[in-house]
Amino acid sequence: MHRPLELLDERRFPIDPWRLIDIDPAPIDLGRTETLFATANGYLGMRDNPPEGRVAHTHGTYVNGFHETWEIQHAESAHAFARVGQTLVNVPDAKVMKLYVDDEPIRVDTADLEKHERLLDFSKGTHERSLIWRTPAGKRISMTTTRLISLEHRHLALIRLELVMLEGRAPVVISSQLLNRQDGADEYESTTNRLAPGDDPRRGRQFERRVLEPIEQRHVTEFGDGGEIGLSHRTLSSKMRIAVACRHEVSGDVSPAITTTIQPDHAKVVFAFDLEVGQRIVIDKWVSYHTAREVPCGELLDRCHRTIDRACEGGVEALFASQESTLQKFWDTADLRVDGDPRSQQAIRWNLFQLVQATAAADEHGIPAKGVTSAGYDGHYFWDTEVYVIPFLARTNPGAARKLLRFRHGLLDAARRRAAEMSQVGALYPWRTINGEEASAYYAAGTAQYHINAAVAYAIEQYTRATGDLAFLHREGAEILVETARLWLDLGFISRDGAFHIHRVTGPDEYTTVVNDNLYTNVMARFNLRFAAQVLRRIVEDDDSALQWLRERTGVNLAEADDWDRCADLMYLPFDAALGIHPQDDSFLDLEPWDFAGTPSDQYPLLLHFHPLVIYRHQVLKQADVVLAMYLRGEHFDRETKRRNFDYYDPITTGDSSLSACVQSIAASEVGYRDLAYEYFLQALHLDLSDTHGNTVDGVHIANAGGVWAGLVHGFGGIRFTETGLAIAPDLPDHWEGLSIGFVHCGSRCRLEVNRSGWNITVFDGPGVLIELDTGAQHVDVGCTYSAT
Amino acid sequence: MHRPLELLDERRFPIDPWRLIDIDPAPIDLGRTETLFATANGYLGMRDNPPEGRVAHTHGTYVNGFHETWEIQHAESAHAFARVGQTLVNVPDAKVMKLYVDDEPIRVDTADLEKHERLLDFSKGTHERSLIWRTPAGKRISMTTTRLISLEHRHLALIRLELVMLEGRAPVVISSQLLNRQDGADEYESTTNRLAPGDDPRRGRQFERRVLEPIEQRHVTEFGDGGEIGLSHRTLSSKMRIAVACRHEVSGDVSPAITTTIQPDHAKVVFAFDLEVGQRIVIDKWVSYHTAREVPCGELLDRCHRTIDRACEGGVEALFASQESTLQKFWDTADLRVDGDPRSQQAIRWNLFQLVQATAAADEHGIPAKGVTSAGYDGHYFWDTEVYVIPFLARTNPGAARKLLRFRHGLLDAARRRAAEMSQVGALYPWRTINGEEASAYYAAGTAQYHINAAVAYAIEQYTRATGDLAFLHREGAEILVETARLWLDLGFISRDGAFHIHRVTGPDEYTTVVNDNLYTNVMARFNLRFAAQVLRRIVEDDDSALQWLRERTGVNLAEADDWDRCADLMYLPFDAALGIHPQDDSFLDLEPWDFAGTPSDQYPLLLHFHPLVIYRHQVLKQADVVLAMYLRGEHFDRETKRRNFDYYDPITTGDSSLSACVQSIAASEVGYRDLAYEYFLQALHLDLSDTHGNTVDGVHIANAGGVWAGLVHGFGGIRFTETGLAIAPDLPDHWEGLSIGFVHCGSRCRLEVNRSGWNITVFDGPGVLIELDTGAQHVDVGCTYSAT
Repeated sequence: MHRPLELLDERRFPIDPWRLIDIDPAPIDLGRTETLFATANGYLGMRDNPPEGRVAHTHGTYVNGFHETWEIQHAESAHAFARVGQTLVNVPDAKVMKLYVDDEPIRVDTADLEKHERLLDFSKGTHERSLIWRTPAGKRISMTTTRLISLEHRHLALIRLELVMLEGRAPVVISSQLLNRQDGADEYESTTNRLAPGDDPRRGRQFERRVLEPIEQRHVTEFGDGGEIGLSHRTLSSKMRIAVACRHEVSGDVSPAITTTIQPDHAKVVFAFDLEVGQRIVIDKWVSYHTAREVPCGELLDRCHRTIDRACEGGVEALFASQESTLQKFWDTADLRVDGDPRSQQAIRWNLFQLVQATAAADEHGIPAKGVTSAGYDGHYFWDTEVYVIPFLARTNPGAARKLLRFRHGLLDAARRRAAEMSQVGALYPWRTINGEEASAYYAAGTAQYHINAAVAYAIEQYTRATGDLAFLHREGAEILVETARLWLDLGFISRDGAFHIHRVTGPDEYTTVVNDNLYTNVMARFNLRFAAQVLRRIVEDDDSALQWLRERTGVNLAEADDWDRCADLMYLPFDAALGIHPQDDSFLDLEPWDFAGTPSDQYPLLLHFHPLVIYRHQVLKQADVVLAMYLRGEHFDRETKRRNFDYYDPITTGDSSLSACVQSIAASEVGYRDLAYEYFLQALHLDLSDTHGNTVDGVHIANAGGVWAGLVHGFGGIRFTETGLAIAPDLPDHWEGLSIGFVHCGSRCRLEVNRSGWNITVFDGPGVLIELDTGAQHVDVGCTYSAT
Repeated sequence: MHRPLELLDERRFPIDPWRLIDIDPAPIDLGRTETLFATANGYLGMRDNPPEGRVAHTHGTYVNGFHETWEIQHAESAHAFARVGQTLVNVPDAKVMKLYVDDEPIRVDTADLEKHERLLDFSKGTHERSLIWRTPAGKRISMTTTRLISLEHRHLALIRLELVMLEGRAPVVISSQLLNRQDGADEYESTTNRLAPGDDPRRGRQFERRVLEPIEQRHVTEFGDGGEIGLSHRTLSSKMRIAVACRHEVSGDVSPAITTTIQPDHAKVVFAFDLEVGQRIVIDKWVSYHTAREVPCGELLDRCHRTIDRACEGGVEALFASQESTLQKFWDTADLRVDGDPRSQQAIRWNLFQLVQATAAADEHGIPAKGVTSAGYDGHYFWDTEVYVIPFLARTNPGAARKLLRFRHGLLDAARRRAAEMSQVGALYPWRTINGEEASAYYAAGTAQYHINAAVAYAIEQYTRATGDLAFLHREGAEILVETARLWLDLGFISRDGAFHIHRVTGPDEYTTVVNDNLYTNVMARFNLRFAAQVLRRIVEDDDSALQWLRERTGVNLAEADDWDRCADLMYLPFDAALGIHPQDDSFLDLEPWDFAGTPSDQYPLLLHFHPLVIYRHQVLKQADVVLAMYLRGEHFDRETKRRNFDYYDPITTGDSSLSACVQSIAASEVGYRDLAYEYFLQALHLDLSDTHGNTVDGVHIANAGGVWAGLVHGFGGIRFTETGLAIAPDLPDHWEGLSIGFVHCGSRCRLEVNRSGWNITVFDGPGVLIELDTGAQHVDVGCTYSAT
């Protein structure tokens, strides 16, 4: 379906290849731009709230995995319904540096500003904001802040604030704070402008109670200007602990008078200056966050202290340099360059930068649906990581991909317990979770999405193809594969027709739920079963020590591989001979067509305007399962079937899911609809920038950013990563003059350059690359460029 | 499926044709017997709690329709999910008459009792309890209470307490109370022993807060001994008002000293006697409850006063006589007599008596699933009334059936609003409700049960057949039929196969939900459509004034009848040619068989031990939809198909639904499985008495009691009420010597007598009866007996 797309206004957001710039921040889109300009490193994230506090949609600071739990109250409960709600916590805010001139605070919504702009720099990895304020007393002062969350040192952030008195002379005060804004700690501004209560399940839980209880506060006087101040808290229910500390270094033309105050939810250092015209001061605020479940708060405060200590020793410039060089490495490897479309180029880099911000230092955590830019979707990990993010990381930062897979492996025991609760053998990964327990309160669009098991298997495959990392595949990877394959075998059954069926499941398309033989699920389950069998056989043949390791953990035996293969071979895949297409599920084609003509545009997304039963009984999709299956397991569908499937499903796909447009783009590209592919690509590319889903306020859609990467690499770039190497069949949008794609393949850093006359690939290092062309395989060595025209 | 059945122990519960007697009440089954011995009249209900208070499972007093509302908190909400929870309120308790001898209270669980028995008398309509207590001081006293809730005067109850000093002499105190035990009013004993929290959706909501706020208290000193005392309250959220008042008349050998105390939640009159051996005293406690939404509490207290006034004037004996004569009329009309099975006879009468207690004075209210014996299922009205109770009432108390249909008509506007919320035209009755709004928090086993619309149409048909009441049919009845038919037309659609399909619905069997073309739903929808068309055509032909009335309310036109008939004719009914059976829904036969052999008996009911998805993906039933469809619309199935259907579904029907056994019995009888029919009949007959579903504690299963009636009338009695008259084909269980069935037919009171050699029917009054036999129709006049051997 075609959706209207209104791009960012260039007059306010000028085009720039390496920066997102806003030269006139407006209160009206406060929430959206807080997200667009957020800074993060995958561990720590800060929304773009102004340092002076106050005017904000949501004052948000988040630490990956730091969550509160609560009992899910089901209006009508049933056996094995999810019990433990988990929500990412908005942690104490270190962004606050309030400015007072003549004791007047600045508020951007009412202040007389000569200039006000902000930018996010994708190469420097910084957020900058500058403004010139004409104060109520008629004086003029310039304030510039630079905010950096270190991609190298995940616990570290820096905020540099620079003031220059442009006109007049005045007492100037900077109150730099650590502020716990928990609801319930209502001495302070609340965290968020409460929205009208609604039925939007995409928004995270709003706690009605205090979440963090203060544990220990600290003031270490001998370090920095005003001393190092620290707060620590513990979540009331999940008993997780967090500490935040900061230290200031003041430089410039004037020395301040300094006052430090520490309260349980509020610590601050107040700097008072008398500034004359032309005088300049700079305050560097070093910030560190540490979190843990078992470690005492005092110890966490110590860790913050050491982080800051080490960082101060290196100095501000070294930190800026480290940030830039970390990014330089990323862009060298992974930059995607488009010739002839500067607007898209900027948006592409913004999306890639979001992927970096969501993953760089996520380490032993998953990637929440919104990264660490918000608590949207409660900060839960879905299958997004495995299907949309790991394929990107495997080709740009394989080490990070490995960590994410190890994270999933770490949740395997919880998945085993969940399978048992669901009366099944093997392991069943939760549809949404932070701590490994199923947190999906609506099973029909949650637990019933068994396909998440296969998504994990898919990510293992993608990672293995990118790295050849058999050490992981034969142990942690194999353990996951064995347990997920067992689940599938148990979930399905061989029916009277002799085929293997899987019933009462929900595919990715949540506009039909709890159906029989969902095509996507069956295709992916088949893959999961076969992959598990293949890996198990290889381990049995080649890797005795891994086999022993695996047997101890799973008791697996080779006969299971036969069962998996047999059921994979018998897997039922719905197919309608008359139409020549795969029905999304066994009875999908029997459903009533949706009345698209009679559905005004303000009734989208449908889920907010129609009872689920109304949606479920019609042929209408949130995202197209069959199309996604064709993308992830393209080898199982011939091109003609792909085109017929696409032709059938595309018009009935609303794209109400943010995961839809990127996949439609890739599929359209593959079946030869170049213009449509570009249209969908733009939908994905600008999904957050243009807020096409109306909920960018709730955070960046990280999976979609991964989809933008995939749209370029697999769609227009036409790269397929096969079992043995890669295949290349680019097809650029008409007005693009060139496309350059960097990626890694089994240790080789490669770059594909496509232009209107052909393409070539260069391998910079590593062992070389095997390229499969229609005309046969071709090996490309290191330092060599292979060209095709 | 066969379920074990352990009948009541005759040594404790001796067989008696007209009474349920318990000669040794035991604390272990307190909850169950509180239900079995409850007294009620359909408006007011009292659980069998001892007058001395204290030892109880649930101190329960309920008034039909008197409910509290609360916001349903969905763990994950969606558009048009039910919003307003409704729960029958446990109202202030007037049963309490505490006894103290030598200032020692009696507690039945610890007291030294020489005798302790209770009984429920089905012909007198009273509950009696008597005991002899050897007090701690070694004295002996006999206490007898008689409790009556008037079937004639719905606001009136009487408790007679009689004491005789058998040995010794002692100060004796009776503290007669009105006690509001709301949780939150925790000065007093709580209403209930809290059970361990669980997933049993059958239990009602437990409020964690006070529900009733005290409004006005009253002490009218000039009436009775100790004056008339009254309390009134208002529900906090739904703003319903209730008043209860009582007055005492003391007689006997000694005059008491009397003290009266009134507090907001607690009013009492304390009678103090000095009793010598052989002395006897009697206290008659007249009680009245009045409720309303809009009427001030003071006015309700006035109404209580007038009710009591009038009752006292008549006197106690008149009230006992009225109760007995009301029941005499019922038994004369409706008694079901079995020869040769006294145990069943007692249980049959207990079930019929429960139907009387649930319906006699329900008046403008529905019949809650548990009558007024508990707040189980929150006191909600389901389709039970229409499918299981109205057919009984139409043939035993047609005026009461009419009131219930008028009650449904009164909810029609709410049903229209619900349809609109669900993006539909016409009216959609809520699956469960008290005030007309959908209160089902789990739509898959709630709102998706669209078939409730057809249940209402079915009840209208049954009532019309029983009474010929065209005045109702052509107005209120027609309005319901028009709006429900419109809903069906809009819900279904004509598919590419040319048939009319109804998708994503749940039939009565909640072990498969949200399926396509549920056979039961489609059969009943077809009936609903045709019945609406037929009635509309007759109105157009014959009843101008009704047509005008109907047009004003619905804007209906005759062309709609054509649409209804057309879609009814095109209605798709799944049929499997190979098996010769109707699949329960379009894909039911594709599901995996349930592993019954591997399911231990403690895993039933399945819903408490398996996640819904596990149940849904297997061929396992809570109750058999197809079998129910064969019963309600028997004319559409030939006998061979009925037998094949029964043979297929019976072994996979768990009977986890209390609505299952009675229908299986009737169907088994019809297809010739006489022994199985009897086995299922016993399951239904003793369902509460033997507590086979483990939740009799939560109230009497009223619909099942209706099913017991149907099992005798339609099953063994073999009576079918057809469009024009009735057909008779009895088939008695082998060891029954006779069966006698009383019923009314279009104003004629009839009695069918069946014995081993044949049957005859006698018509006592009214216009006569048309009997259809295989050999042709036969008219039977008033006063005439028609015999067949």
